[in-house]
Parts: sequence; structure tokens; C-alpha cells
Amino acid sequence: MRAVDLIQKKKLGQKHTREEIYSLVEGYTKGEIEDYQMSAWLMAVCFQGLDKEETAYLTEAFVDSGEILDFSSISNFVADKHSTGGVGDKVTIVLIPLLASLGVTCAKLSGRGLGYTGGTVDKLESIPNFKCEMSKDDFMKQIKEINAAISSQSPNLTPADGKIYALRDVTATVDNKSLICASVVSKKIASGANSIVLDVKFGSGAFIKTKEEAQELAKLMIETGALLNRKISAIITSMEQPLGKNIGNSLEIIESIEFLKGNYSQDLYDVILEIVAKTLISGGFCKTKDEVKEKMDESIKSKKALEMLRKIISYQGGNPDVVDNYSLFKQAKNKYEIKAQNQGFISDLDALEIAHACKLLGAGRDKKSDSIDFSAGCILSKKISDKVQEGETVLTLYYNDVKEEKLKEAIEHTKNSFKLSNNEVTPPVLIYEG
Amino acid sequence: MRAVDLIQKKKLGQKHTREEIYSLVEGYTKGEIEDYQMSAWLMAVCFQGLDKEETAYLTEAFVDSGEILDFSSISNFVADKHSTGGVGDKVTIVLIPLLASLGVTCAKLSGRGLGYTGGTVDKLESIPNFKCEMSKDDFMKQIKEINAAISSQSPNLTPADGKIYALRDVTATVDNKSLICASVVSKKIASGANSIVLDVKFGSGAFIKTKEEAQELAKLMIETGALLNRKISAIITSMEQPLGKNIGNSLEIIESIEFLKGNYSQDLYDVILEIVAKTLISGGFCKTKDEVKEKMDESIKSKKALEMLRKIISYQGGNPDVVDNYSLFKQAKNKYEIKAQNQGFISDLDALEIAHACKLLGAGRDKKSDSIDFSAGCILSKKISDKVQEGETVLTLYYNDVKEEKLKEAIEHTKNSFKLSNNEVTPPVLIYEG
Repeated sequence: MRAVDLIQKKKLGQKHTREEIYSLVEGYTKGEIEDYQMSAWLMAVCFQGLDKEETAYLTEAFVDSGEILDFSSISNFVADKHSTGGVGDKVTIVLIPLLASLGVTCAKLSGRGLGYTGGTVDKLESIPNFKCEMSKDDFMKQIKEINAAISSQSPNLTPADGKIYALRDVTATVDNKSLICASVVSKKIASGANSIVLDVKFGSGAFIKTKEEAQELAKLMIETGALLNRKISAIITSMEQPLGKNIGNSLEIIESIEFLKGNYSQDLYDVILEIVAKTLISGGFCKTKDEVKEKMDESIKSKKALEMLRKIISYQGGNPDVVDNYSLFKQAKNKYEIKAQNQGFISDLDALEIAHACKLLGAGRDKKSDSIDFSAGCILSKKISDKVQEGETVLTLYYNDVKEEKLKEAIEHTKNSFKLSNNEVTPPVLIYEG
Repeated sequence: MRAVDLIQKKKLGQKHTREEIYSLVEGYTKGEIEDYQMSAWLMAVCFQGLDKEETAYLTEAFVDSGEILDFSSISNFVADKHSTGGVGDKVTIVLIPLLASLGVTCAKLSGRGLGYTGGTVDKLESIPNFKCEMSKDDFMKQIKEINAAISSQSPNLTPADGKIYALRDVTATVDNKSLICASVVSKKIASGANSIVLDVKFGSGAFIKTKEEAQELAKLMIETGALLNRKISAIITSMEQPLGKNIGNSLEIIESIEFLKGNYSQDLYDVILEIVAKTLISGGFCKTKDEVKEKMDESIKSKKALEMLRKIISYQGGNPDVVDNYSLFKQAKNKYEIKAQNQGFISDLDALEIAHACKLLGAGRDKKSDSIDFSAGCILSKKISDKVQEGETVLTLYYNDVKEEKLKEAIEHTKNSFKLSNNEVTPPVLIYEG
């Protein structure tokens, strides 16, 4: 079937066969189907949708377009997680050492960040000499030896998704659930995971705006996993305010280390417990969430998880002494405290405004080629529902040589990020069942 | 505004400003907007539509992308017509000499054909040495001297439409009324016409399937003309059976010459009278259709229109003797008569089946580079409602060296093209008011 006929078929709202989806994806990857045909098909998909089966075919075709990692010689239970992205989201950095310390094999492929703040790879690279670029052999070897590795994504995995993702980004075809699902799930399957926990975020700052949409996406991803024989579970989390207290690359690493030392903010703890529970129960390691909590707390208390982080840092070329000595991180020269003008309760703490400020200070990038200031960012002293006195610090910006006007703009965004209420405020619900 | 934001805007069903449409069209023509972005926008347009004003902006942007012919020094009333294309449609070849003989300045730009049969240019080029490729100066000079010229389309007119049309063809975005309208109307405006008559065809063989759709398209084109200060009128014609009796390039030229000698089939006469009437009345040459009919019949009877055709052929390098001597056309070596198996009334005569047969015999082309056998085609002895005896010829195929299997297939299609009924059949309605 010619590409134009396949586009026409989807335009008319008809269902594709497995062969048709494969011929589109393979033809496009080989360059036989042109960008302009794929983008017309993607736009038709945005209007007509793909059903469950078509979504699974697309996911499978993405997986089959490249290499598939195979850990069966190392472990028969390999865990992975994926977050659709949020401000202050350092879950991976805490989760992987924790899970590995509890005996779960973790083969984690992460990305760099585009937009407001860095991605997991950027955050880890704020540890002096830490390397995420690793060969497949080194990745497998490290996992075999210490049960965990965090690598940047390999171009050999799901190349079709890579090519299509780049096209979606410039043709306003990003926000279709089936396309998002195929992109996320194919990467997780190709990276060899048996058990995958997804953290689907919604809110004004996320590209998914409502809880209902997040639930639909989560449901589709779980069903796609089932059709492709993978255990996928999901949690839905709100992105009303940043996760945890630190935003910015090295600041988030420091917060992650503190977490593993037992000093954590409750929201971050809750999200991590939820993901650990889903993973351990799915792998048959535990039966109940209480049992999981006990194990997790014990691993923190005994410093086993912290030791695992030290090991990962060391294996990946980084200086493990950062765990005990934060001055080994690049330090920000300047700070600016934002104080409350009145007393009251924090009723709003806009994640996007704060992220915008952090990016202006150098914590994020617009283009792949932009450099990041690892030390730039923000620490929240208060979160939604916290009481604050007049003149008390709500949050602090950290930065280096930033142009006067950019600093001014960043301060403006930060000041706009929070609201005070005279009345007590209920802490927002963070986690919804997937 | 970035292209991706304009795509997103149309995807959300929002209305573009004039500036936005111009920035899309200009950006694309200059190569600043990529094919894959234009095709995504076109697909979004297929779902969300363009309103009257947006359609006029698009039409205007197409016109302004290239040269605009100006005949004001020659005549203040220049007529043009356009047909959305049909099997056996030789209207232009009869109409232009007729109108010119009645004093109307005709500046006709025509295309080659892709698909089942040739376009007007291909048909004319079946006259030995006839040339449609002419410079703008030669085109203007001929019109000044003899009141009419038929030229192939210049690449300098509406280049944006040319580029977008090629893209629509391979991305399943052809069948949107606003896109069709902008493409057709912009070409007519750029070619300098003041008065434009459109023949919008519908039926199983046309890309517009129903009368209602054809009426909507006609209405949109008339409104677009009005917004851009051009007099556009339209007729809606059914493509239930081929127009006239001959299908194929030189066969259609011969039928056109016969028409101007006074030997015509009624359906072709009716369509031409309708278009001549709309043109003459719009130009103030006549007040009523009866008056037009009288003038037209007189021009045929006096052979003025035939002389005009001879002049056009002669001016454009062709041998005018073909008008009196059909053996000067390339002759088909073989013919095959399809006979009725029973007696009855022709109740169906499928234009598309017949066109398919003609193409198999060499009368049409698939790719621009394919060559055409000018002598191949088909002559209908009967049309819908005609009575036929058992063993009587319904139609005759003409062809040269055609592979056995192609000939067999062509005969198959031709046999399938007509149905007989035992009861009398009402002739189909051909013309609907636009």
C-alpha cells in the first residue's frame, strides 16, 4: 500500500492493520516515506486517533526498528520507571539506588532535558566527572556487578521513535495519547525491562492538563504493555507545586543524597514509596505496601541505599566523596532570598513560574547545544499549606554571572510563583491511583 | 509566529489572520517553512476547514506569490473558464474559438492531464506541430491579434499553488473545498481574467462525489471571487456518462471540429451554451440566454467559429488543414467494436470504466514523463436512454500496438461500462445551476 493511501485511510478514520503500521514505520525509518507524508499521517492521527491495537502495533514497530537489550542472562526481573516530566523531579536518582539496595536489577536509561530544567542525565553530570554516556557492554557489565546503572539513551534503541519524535516536535503533533504512549512504552520495552512503573504527571505545568487525561494516558499505556506482554503499572501525580524542595541540577542531587540519609520532604517520599511498592509487589519481593515501607525505611536507616548511590557514582567515573562533602559540587556565587510581605499560609506555588526563573538563571537549556550552569537553581523553604511569617524567606535563588535584566525577570517570576492566604490551606493531593 | 504555532492554531480550529496565511505561504514558497510543516497544516485544514475569509486570503497569497498577467492594454473584458475535469470534456476546444468569434477576448491557460485521459494541452498537441508552450509575449501578441490563445500554464503564475498542489497530491490532502478553491481561483485571477465561468463536475468519476458538495464548492469559489473583486459564475454538471461521444486526444479534437461544423451531441452543446451564456451576459454582450443561443448558432452556421479555430491552430504552429482532412491526424491501426448482447435501452454508461479502458490503450498517462498515444481512445455510438438492438455497436475502441493482456483488460472495462434496461430510460439531468 502506498503511503498516500495509508494517510487517506487514517484521515477517513479507518483502522490500520499491523502490516500497515509496520510499513509506515519501517518505510519512514528507511527514508522511503518522506517527512511530509509522516507528518500528514501524524496530524490525521491527532484527529482520528489510534485504537488500543493500533497503538500496540505502533509501539511494537518502534521497538523492532532498533536494538532490544536482553538482560535474561543477568536477571529475570529488571525494573524500570518513567516520568512524563516535572519540576523538581529527582525520583530516578533516589529510586535506582534504593531499588538496587533491595535486590532489584535496575537498567535505567535516562534523557537530557530540554526546556525549563535539566533531565536526569544533566543532574547526574553535575557530580564531578560522572559519565552517563556508556557503551552497551559497560552498561550490562555494571548492572551485572552492582545491580544498577543509569545511562543516557542509546541511539540504537527505537530509532523510529527518535525520528518521529523530532518531527512531532515541529509539526504540532506532540499531544496525542497514542503517540505519547508508543514513544514512552517502546523505549522502556527496548531497554529490556520486565516491570515498568510510569509516573504520569498532570497540571498547568505539565503537557497533560487534567487528571482525567492523565488517567486515560496511564490506562492506554497499561493496556499497551499488556498487549505486548509487559507488566506496566502507573501512578498519576499532580504537578501543582515542585516535587521536593530543590530545583536545579546539583541542588537536586544534594536533595537526593539527603533523602538517602533520611532527610526528606514528605511529597518526594510518598511518590518514591509508591513506585518502590509497585515495583517490589509486581516482582513478588513483597506482598503489601506496609511490608515495602518497612524494607525501604530499613535500607535508608542502614545507609544501604546511600552506599549503593556511592557505588553507582564511583562505577560511572564520578567522585563518590560528594556524598559527604557538598562543597565538591560547583558552588553558586550569589543567592537571592524571596521573602513574604505578610504573614499567612502558602496557597499556591506555581511549578512553572519557578522553573522559568531557574531556566533564566542557567539551570535549563533551549537547544541541545546550550550549556547548563549546574549550580544554578532554587531552594524552597516553604511548600503549599505551610505557615509563613512576615519577612520570612519563602524561597532562595542561586546563580552565578547572570545579566541584570535576566536576574530581574527571574525574581519577577519567583515573586509571582506563590500566593498567601489568611486561612489555613489543605495540602494538595499528590498521588492518584493509575 | 513560528510555523509550529500556526499549525497548532489551525489544529485547535482557530481562525488565521491574513498575515498568518501570507506568512505560511510566503515562508513555504521561500523554503523557510518545511514540506513536513506545510503538510501537517494542510491536514489540519482538512479537519478544521478554512472559512470564507481565510480561503480568500489563501487565494490572494497564491496570486501574489508569482506574476499576474495584465491585459488591460488589450481589452477590458477578458474571459476564462475552468472545469474540475471530466471524461470526454473537450469544452475548452470548442468554447474558445466560439467566444473569440463573438468578440470576447480569451486568454486561456490549460494543463496537461494526469490520470485517465489527456488534458486540453495534450488534446491540442495531437494536431500535428501544434504548440501550447509559448512565451508571455507571444501569448499577449496572439491575443491582441486574433482575440484568443490557448497556452500551457506558466510556472511564473501562482508558484506557491504549484508547490502546495504537488505536496497535497502525495499527502492525501487534495479533497478540501477551500484548498481546491484557492488553487483554481488563484490561477484564474493570476492569468488576468475579469470574468470566470467554472464548470464543477460531480459523480462517481469526479473527485467531488455529490451534487451538494459540488454546489458548496461552487458557492465558495463565487464568494472568493467576490471578496477578491472578480466576477465568478459557475455551473454544476453531472459526470454520470462521458461528455459528447469521443474520448481520447485526437478523437476529441475531431469531435470539437465537427461541433463547429454544426454536428454535435446535445449534451456537449448544452454545456457550451450555458458557459457562453454566462460569459456573454456577464460581459454585457447579451441580455438573455435566447439572445446568446441565437448568436452562437449563427457563429456556427456562418463558420465564423470554425475559422477562428483554424486561425488559432495556424498561429500556434499547427496544420490548419486538419479541420478539413482528419487523415492528417495520427491514425489508430486497430479498432474493436463492443456490441450489445440483447436489445434494450442504455441505462448506465460509466465514464470511469470507459476512461480506464482508454488509458490502458495509451490515451492517458500515470507520470508526467509517460508518453501518450494521441490516436487511442473510444467513440460512443450510444448514450444513456438510447435504444439499442441486439448485435448493434455500443462503442468502438481505437488503439495501436497494445499488449494482449492490456487490450483484454480494456475490453473488460468497456463491457462493464454499460447496462441495458428493458424499459425506456429518462436521459439524465446534466446541468444544475451553480
